[in-house]
Order: sequence, then C-alpha cells, then structure tokens
Amino acid sequence: MTGTVQEIAPRSGAGFTLSAGQTLTVIDPRGVQVADLLAYNAADVREVLSSGRTLDYAETIQLTTGHKLYSNRSNVLLEIVEDTVGRHDFLLTPCSYATFDHFYPDLPRHRGCFGNLAEALAPWGITEDMIPVAFNCFMNVPVDGPTGRLEVLPPVSKAGDRIVLRAAMDLVIGLTACSAPASNGGSFKPIHYRID
Amino acid sequence: MTGTVQEIAPRSGAGFTLSAGQTLTVIDPRGVQVADLLAYNAADVREVLSSGRTLDYAETIQLTTGHKLYSNRSNVLLEIVEDTVGRHDFLLTPCSYATFDHFYPDLPRHRGCFGNLAEALAPWGITEDMIPVAFNCFMNVPVDGPTGRLEVLPPVSKAGDRIVLRAAMDLVIGLTACSAPASNGGSFKPIHYRID
Repeated sequence: MTGTVQEIAPRSGAGFTLSAGQTLTVIDPRGVQVADLLAYNAADVREVLSSGRTLDYAETIQLTTGHKLYSNRSNVLLEIVEDTVGRHDFLLTPCSYATFDHFYPDLPRHRGCFGNLAEALAPWGITEDMIPVAFNCFMNVPVDGPTGRLEVLPPVSKAGDRIVLRAAMDLVIGLTACSAPASNGGSFKPIHYRID
Repeated sequence: MTGTVQEIAPRSGAGFTLSAGQTLTVIDPRGVQVADLLAYNAADVREVLSSGRTLDYAETIQLTTGHKLYSNRSNVLLEIVEDTVGRHDFLLTPCSYATFDHFYPDLPRHRGCFGNLAEALAPWGITEDMIPVAFNCFMNVPVDGPTGRLEVLPPVSKAGDRIVLRAAMDLVIGLTACSAPASNGGSFKPIHYRID
C-alpha cells in the first residue's frame, strides 16, 4: 500500500508497520480533526514512544519539523520532517470509556482512541496497559505558563494539512481518527495517511 | 517503619509498599532537591501512574493539594493532601545514562533516577520498560505558554518542605533522591520520607 492514500473512518483506528527510512504522512482531509499516533519497536514492542523522553530532549512541548520522537529506551523512533500545522499535543493519553465518563457524562459512551488503538495493535501482542501518552497530531492543547492550566481547543489544521514523520527503525504504528468531541471542534471526520 | 522518617541517600532510590489509606510524606530536608515518585498497583504492577491521564483530568500541569494522580487504567492511585511547595513536574521521565550522555557529556555517567528506580522496583517484577513519566516532587519545570519551551530550574523547595500523598489502593512505590545536576541546583542532597 506504499504511496497510496488510506482512509481511517471517523472514530476508528488502524495498525500497520512502517520500515526504517519510510515516511508516514498523516493528513487531515477536512480540517479540525485529531489523529492519535503511537509507535513501537517492531522487533520488541516493549520499546514504545515516550512523551517524557521526547519533551526532555526537545526542551519544548511544541514539537514540529526537525524534532525527534524518542522511545522509553531513549532511541529515536520517528523524526518530524514536514509539518504544515505546527500545533500538536504530547501531554495527554488517548480518549477512552473512562474519559468519556469524566468529560461527557451526558453523551453515549465510546471506547475512544484508546479502545480503537488497543484493537488495532492487538495483532502485534500490544495490550491496553502498553498504551502510553500518544503523539496527538493536530491536537490543540495550549498551556498557560503562569498557572499551568491546559485547555483542549479545536485544532488549527485546515483541509489538506499534514505532518510527515520518517521512521528511524522498523516500527508498529497505531493511528486513529479521534473520537472526543472537544478535541475535534465538535464533529468527527476521517483521517488520511500514506506510507512512502 | 510506619511513622519513622527514612532517609534516601543522595543519588539513590528506594522501593516500598504503601497500603490503601496510608499517607506518604516526601520531605526535602535541606531544600532544592528533587524526588522522583512512581506508583504501581500492588495487586497488578501493569497498572501504573500515568501523567497523561492525570493531566487530562486535572486540566493543569501544576498539580498540588486536592489533585489526584491517576493510573493508565484511569483509577486514582494517590491524592495530594498537603503540599508546602506547589511546584512539581509531571512532564519528564527519570534521568538515566542516556540523559546524562545527552545533557552532561563532560560529566561522569550516572544511571540516574531511572537506574535507581529499576533496581529498587525489581523485587516486585517491575522492569526498566515499565518505568513511565514519574511524578517529580519539587522539580521546577516552567513551560512558556506562547512558545511551549520548557526549562529545568532549581527547585523552589526550602529545608523541611514536604508533599503528602494518600494512597487510594495498595501500592508499590519507587522514590529517589534525584541525580541530575540541573534538576537540583547543582548539588545532590538526601530525601526523607515517612509512612503514616
């Protein structure tokens, strides 16, 4: 499926492999839609994307072109090589039944990105407990410096915006079209991706 | 050892259990010293402290009295019931050989809080790959809102300052006296703790 645009339907997820040197392009086809991204070392899925290592080395919570995404073993998993948005989140875990109960008690429950990632990654032996903080493409979570307060605002991404990441090792990737109302400006759109 | 102050020597760590309802008091006896804290469900150590769940529910990166620390399964592990400092970090992973290589290439390598936690937690079957972002007591990591840039500054804690956390379930705790120069104002001091 290299070079072909794949679609992730609204409120769903996908799992696939990405070989060292390949690029993954994550596209927001309609705008204002988040895609949660996870990455695992394909040779040993106990090695996984780490927000804490990445933010420590980057010395910023706003990651964009040129930044590297590190694993819990301090190895580079992915490098951001293009980014037309410049606003992503790497603080929060994927939405889940529990987060829906907390934030949207009056809405129907949804398993969210957490449930979608768990199902998409199960073929590689990845279980729910192995899902850490995701790199949330296009998610807009500003932090107020003096108070530390964070807000989940609608993404600033417009139709066709994208982020391109190059794999530094063979990876298993989990990717979603996010299911949480506040994260996506109140509506649920698809996500497109392409491997090159 | 309930009610007795225990000392963690500079640049080392400790592992112990904390029963539901007990409180853990973490004390900075000399001031300007960080203590990395981890917590696991004692009945199933695959359930562990989660920065991403906690920050999502708290809607702030500045956690203090009244805030709850959640697990990767969205259960409350600990509640902060007293805090004389009000400035702690929950963004960064424990310092390690790799972080020393990155930030202090001219200093002797040190296994850091990561190595100290791994050794201290090994008796409960907790391995290096199971160490997530720690709750870093007294660590001072301001984030600049507009740019997202973060800095590691000396703690604002003074001699005798403390944070008190109450366990919401039976826990395995890992706790360190942090080993990284920048995090501790350039010198390495002990940490005291007490279980009540």
